[in-house]
Amino acid sequence: MTTTQASRWTTTPTTPEEWLDRARAVATELAVDAVARDRANQTPYAEVQLLKESGLVTLLGPAEHGGGGQDWTTALRVIRAVSAGDGSIGQLLGYHYLWAWAARLVGTPEQIAAVEEAATKETWFFGGAVNPRDADLVIREEGGELVYNGEKSFSTGGQISDVTVLEGVLEGTDKHIFAIVPTAQPGIQFKGDWDSLGQRLTESGGVRIENVRVPWEAAAGYIEKDGEHVFLPRVYNSLNVPLIQLIFANLYVGIAEGALATAATYTRDTTRAWPYAGDVKQRASDEFYVQEVYGDLRSKLWAAEALAERAATLIESINAHADDVTAEERGEAAVVIAAAKQVAIDAALEIGTRVFEVTGARATASAVGLDIYWRNVRTHSLHDPIAHKRAEVGRYALRGELPEPTWYT
Amino acid sequence: MTTTQASRWTTTPTTPEEWLDRARAVATELAVDAVARDRANQTPYAEVQLLKESGLVTLLGPAEHGGGGQDWTTALRVIRAVSAGDGSIGQLLGYHYLWAWAARLVGTPEQIAAVEEAATKETWFFGGAVNPRDADLVIREEGGELVYNGEKSFSTGGQISDVTVLEGVLEGTDKHIFAIVPTAQPGIQFKGDWDSLGQRLTESGGVRIENVRVPWEAAAGYIEKDGEHVFLPRVYNSLNVPLIQLIFANLYVGIAEGALATAATYTRDTTRAWPYAGDVKQRASDEFYVQEVYGDLRSKLWAAEALAERAATLIESINAHADDVTAEERGEAAVVIAAAKQVAIDAALEIGTRVFEVTGARATASAVGLDIYWRNVRTHSLHDPIAHKRAEVGRYALRGELPEPTWYT
Amino acid sequence: MTTTQASRWTTTPTTPEEWLDRARAVATELAVDAVARDRANQTPYAEVQLLKESGLVTLLGPAEHGGGGQDWTTALRVIRAVSAGDGSIGQLLGYHYLWAWAARLVGTPEQIAAVEEAATKETWFFGGAVNPRDADLVIREEGGELVYNGEKSFSTGGQISDVTVLEGVLEGTDKHIFAIVPTAQPGIQFKGDWDSLGQRLTESGGVRIENVRVPWEAAAGYIEKDGEHVFLPRVYNSLNVPLIQLIFANLYVGIAEGALATAATYTRDTTRAWPYAGDVKQRASDEFYVQEVYGDLRSKLWAAEALAERAATLIESINAHADDVTAEERGEAAVVIAAAKQVAIDAALEIGTRVFEVTGARATASAVGLDIYWRNVRTHSLHDPIAHKRAEVGRYALRGELPEPTWYT
Amino acid sequence: MTTTQASRWTTTPTTPEEWLDRARAVATELAVDAVARDRANQTPYAEVQLLKESGLVTLLGPAEHGGGGQDWTTALRVIRAVSAGDGSIGQLLGYHYLWAWAARLVGTPEQIAAVEEAATKETWFFGGAVNPRDADLVIREEGGELVYNGEKSFSTGGQISDVTVLEGVLEGTDKHIFAIVPTAQPGIQFKGDWDSLGQRLTESGGVRIENVRVPWEAAAGYIEKDGEHVFLPRVYNSLNVPLIQLIFANLYVGIAEGALATAATYTRDTTRAWPYAGDVKQRASDEFYVQEVYGDLRSKLWAAEALAERAATLIESINAHADDVTAEERGEAAVVIAAAKQVAIDAALEIGTRVFEVTGARATASAVGLDIYWRNVRTHSLHDPIAHKRAEVGRYALRGELPEPTWYT
Repeated sequence: MTTTQASRWTTTPTTPEEWLDRARAVATELAVDAVARDRANQTPYAEVQLLKESGLVTLLGPAEHGGGGQDWTTALRVIRAVSAGDGSIGQLLGYHYLWAWAARLVGTPEQIAAVEEAATKETWFFGGAVNPRDADLVIREEGGELVYNGEKSFSTGGQISDVTVLEGVLEGTDKHIFAIVPTAQPGIQFKGDWDSLGQRLTESGGVRIENVRVPWEAAAGYIEKDGEHVFLPRVYNSLNVPLIQLIFANLYVGIAEGALATAATYTRDTTRAWPYAGDVKQRASDEFYVQEVYGDLRSKLWAAEALAERAATLIESINAHADDVTAEERGEAAVVIAAAKQVAIDAALEIGTRVFEVTGARATASAVGLDIYWRNVRTHSLHDPIAHKRAEVGRYALRGELPEPTWYT
Repeated sequence: MTTTQASRWTTTPTTPEEWLDRARAVATELAVDAVARDRANQTPYAEVQLLKESGLVTLLGPAEHGGGGQDWTTALRVIRAVSAGDGSIGQLLGYHYLWAWAARLVGTPEQIAAVEEAATKETWFFGGAVNPRDADLVIREEGGELVYNGEKSFSTGGQISDVTVLEGVLEGTDKHIFAIVPTAQPGIQFKGDWDSLGQRLTESGGVRIENVRVPWEAAAGYIEKDGEHVFLPRVYNSLNVPLIQLIFANLYVGIAEGALATAATYTRDTTRAWPYAGDVKQRASDEFYVQEVYGDLRSKLWAAEALAERAATLIESINAHADDVTAEERGEAAVVIAAAKQVAIDAALEIGTRVFEVTGARATASAVGLDIYWRNVRTHSLHDPIAHKRAEVGRYALRGELPEPTWYT
Repeated sequence: MTTTQASRWTTTPTTPEEWLDRARAVATELAVDAVARDRANQTPYAEVQLLKESGLVTLLGPAEHGGGGQDWTTALRVIRAVSAGDGSIGQLLGYHYLWAWAARLVGTPEQIAAVEEAATKETWFFGGAVNPRDADLVIREEGGELVYNGEKSFSTGGQISDVTVLEGVLEGTDKHIFAIVPTAQPGIQFKGDWDSLGQRLTESGGVRIENVRVPWEAAAGYIEKDGEHVFLPRVYNSLNVPLIQLIFANLYVGIAEGALATAATYTRDTTRAWPYAGDVKQRASDEFYVQEVYGDLRSKLWAAEALAERAATLIESINAHADDVTAEERGEAAVVIAAAKQVAIDAALEIGTRVFEVTGARATASAVGLDIYWRNVRTHSLHDPIAHKRAEVGRYALRGELPEPTWYT
Repeated sequence: MTTTQASRWTTTPTTPEEWLDRARAVATELAVDAVARDRANQTPYAEVQLLKESGLVTLLGPAEHGGGGQDWTTALRVIRAVSAGDGSIGQLLGYHYLWAWAARLVGTPEQIAAVEEAATKETWFFGGAVNPRDADLVIREEGGELVYNGEKSFSTGGQISDVTVLEGVLEGTDKHIFAIVPTAQPGIQFKGDWDSLGQRLTESGGVRIENVRVPWEAAAGYIEKDGEHVFLPRVYNSLNVPLIQLIFANLYVGIAEGALATAATYTRDTTRAWPYAGDVKQRASDEFYVQEVYGDLRSKLWAAEALAERAATLIESINAHADDVTAEERGEAAVVIAAAKQVAIDAALEIGTRVFEVTGARATASAVGLDIYWRNVRTHSLHDPIAHKRAEVGRYALRGELPEPTWYT
């Protein structure tokens, strides 16, 4: 990644294919030093800046405010493309898209309009403090305002975000309230404690929320009715989980694409044919087993990608009528997405491990850094247990059961 | 399968979805006694009659002549659906579509028009005597006619076909000549020697061709030019191999769908929960491992299907400009199809074996017949070595190489 | 299998290695027409006669009475060797060894001596009516005798056995009582309803027990004490389950050996090298992928065999002090055996499926019958759910838990 | 690892079981900070010192000189045990055993006696500069001495060894000459360039050999005959390759044992049960899938271990008559060892990846370091292509072919 990116791109893509080319260009740039940056483990300010300058950050934003005006199909492909170059940055971008979509999922029409305009015009990068396996943030009502307090162990984006999505429960009620707040405020303190095997540049450490104040107008989806703040639920509210899980699937497919591409270059350029065979080949890429392994891995990854693409079509048809999505539609999309995630994980872990078989012993040198793909996939693919995802798909296949909306299904 | 099907269907489907429903209805009927018919191993006259009456045989035929006027995307889905009910009949239908398409692949515009009209109006069922691992048929020119002689060890369709596609080489030349001839003639003798582990009702036995005469006008794609019979090659001529390989992939996916569906019914209705567990469940379908296995298999099969669907889109775009298809387009489609076939075989073999894990010991009773899926997939998936298909995909992934058109790539 | 076996063997083996050679000779004979006999599905009288004449039936019998005097290590290897030739007959022999050992497991010293003498001198072949997933047989006491009644859905051996092991519960008590009774009596009626995917010659159908009378003296392990019939339990009583499970593991390994051997012969003698490769080989066995697949399968099967052998050493050390075996010893053996069974099943199913990859399409002809191995393993390996066996090993690996003795653990 | 180990062990083990306990004690100590030492990447002087003090370094040395007097079966188990605690140190010890055995493999009786005495009494730690994929070292004869020159890219042990095994070819001849030389001499310069994904403390970097002088008497196996230096070959000379490959297999099994043990502790102590299930468990270790995964991995690893143990018995019988080993014995051992290595690699890579499934997302924290097992196995298991090892076993399974002795077979 070069450090002066100022005048890099002078045009704005317009078609999906152009946006995808843009994503690939960003990925290419990120890939150059992805291993070095992973080792250095610095907060990815420059990387996020690159995402902003490339236009990808506002890909989903309304065209009228300067956004790309693209749909989720393209957004998911963009995540995949960026992840091929740098899994951490692909994850940041994917989470950003989801958080930026939070207003659409739970906001009122007015909130949606306002957030989209501001976020697009000001190129907000979104983070979130929402990890559901921690206790909810606690919300006190104080002087007509909501005051958030609590801790979350993981908050992807963190430090590098412009705004943060908070989620909490209003004391003495069971009201869950989302709000978007500026990240740069004293009440939001990142612990900087993210130090993991992979996805190292995602700023996924813990966060402490102290007295972060939010006016009721910013409580996503709440309206005043008869003097009370009420939330009118739609099925669409809970599309966040299928969406993020599909983002995950595309993240894994993307990382695995990066692995295959990097390995193929190494095999072609560096790996030597095995000299102790009855039938010694000129090039490693002439060895039958090398061809077979690449064919096996390539086939599996295409299949994973194809299923992720199929899942995206289900999201699109849901997005086409967000207001009256049925529980069946939501559930069926969730199941296909759960399947896509499984297939993506299986393929990506296998690829992350087996590319070494076809690059050879010297490709284990730290200077090569070919392990970054396995590390990245292994780390993130544990987000929630794959076994439970399998069971979720299985209950559907076996009994037609759709998953109850939770934070993970 | 009931034996009197006369008035079964009074309407003709018009949309792709209606055609697919028709295919599913055919499959349901076939599934009722698929195991029994597999055991009886009788020539599938009634089954082919069912395909004809359902309209599926002329699905690809021009609407103006009474055909369905559908595209290959739908044809492939229909093959998949029928194969879920009966793999043998799915194979017969798939091969039929390919042979019926032979005129389109190599014929002159006039031949194409004539064949499509006759085949559609008269509901021809196509067979073929073309197995490339045998020697080519030998063609003698005699009295201005072509006279075919020779043998083929496999000729799917055989006995139950109305017309047979022949392929041979004109003596003393390297001219390969395809022709469509009536099956019912003394020079075409089927050996009736197909007795295999699976796909038992496909009439895939050997055939002897003795002095089958074909006028030059019926030599597919040959025109007279300067007193000579010449063939003007197009890239599209060699699309037969990608097409048939994609038919295979859909056949396997379809069979595996049948396996999953049959197994799921058995698990729900018959399998007992395991009584020797710390935590005994009420129903087998409550067992975590049962759910997990179904989820794993379902996910893999969806992925295989999704890749087969993606491959179909490549065929469609090729079909959209058959006359100027490039070698790159053909090659790229062939590679993706090779990948789809691999993934389909892996999934279908695993499903054919593992459904027993979740149905239990009593499902091995001959009366259940749950092995038919493994047998069917195992038998046909050996058509050509999967290892060489993997290597073909691998050479593309690794070196960007496209497969040379042969009878298998 | 030739039909006159009378004078075939004139010597009796003495060393373990000679016994193993004898087993291999039996297997070779069985293998000749194993597929044909499997299809004919006739009661295996001749096969059992062969086992008797070969001396294998009394392999474990005391030498003083004319038995082989061998240990279980050898018996398990013999089962493996015979199963390589014919899985059904290997199973019959394995179950026979277990049932013949029943006296040792639960009998009194006097009963053990009596049974071993009679069984060895008279070459009894043992069957059993013990399937635990059916209700227990009901025992009434009548005139100082035990009268057994009930039904079992599976009873391997059945028709071809000389004696049958019964197990029932004495009415109004929780006394489980084993007894060995002559098979040929009106109260034992075999249903002849075994018709399954594999292991077809094992006579594993149902049996009806009607008023089969057994004197108290034949109630295995019961002694009279203070006018009551009491059973003095030892840990060793419950070794039947580990033993039979280890028999299963060896059965699967044996069948898979048969598959590999048959396939290798076919590949060498019949399979043709693939002609559409860049680098066409002379023989199929020169193809790299063919060598790799055989190497992969061979390695896995050796590993499964090695673990089965390790498990046998645990059985031997338990047998060396049957009277004071601890629950720990029994439990640890059970866990290793559960592991051996899993590995054997995985290897055998994979081999049963993948041998076709390296023999090719023509090996699916019914005349070849190469599917018998998959069918045999698939059928028997469902005896009890592999998932629960995995969990059993897992609880040990994770928490050091030993399985409670049940009918399956 | 504590730093003052001086008076740690006051006794010397005598039985194999005691030696194994000693190895386990060493492993326990190494495991304490294995991850931290891996990260620090310091030359393992202290670790080698620990090996020396524990007595393990001279395990194979003659008892009369103070060595353990143990056989290879025990040595291989010791390697496995130490590798469970620290893969790098297990590798160092394994290579040391092989190099220390070099005299036995190629030396004259006098050389063997001398080396064993000195090595045992002085507790030599052996390294080697022998990587065969580099060009051979070049040997000049000069003043009746052999002068070695050249470079090797890998030389496990290096810096921390007391003596180094050199291998070169005498200029103008095809005489390969091994010699043992003191490591600490100016002509042996280690590059310190080993920086790899795993096995980081093995000091496996490059080495430059400049004018290292060796008297003819130290040329292993060479005797003077008729004024010429001649080598009398035995089959046993080439046992180095099967031996080192079996060391590898045990190294991988050992590392995987470490992974399972560490993961099990984590799952028991730290992993939380999944709260979004229909049937929430109290402890993670109560989840069925967790038990199943551990059972699956445990079973596979026991199988790998059992095959490694079987291979060791072949080495023992060869060692029992080193002077007249046949090519068949050597070849059959090599094939079984190749199989053992494959099975070990498959199991260890799967374990290295899947332990995370049962420890959960937080186990990816760098502080946990659970990735060290995958990294260590992935790195070393590429020593030579597994595909060629499979083919080697396959040629034996299929055609009875034994591998030609080379540096890798």
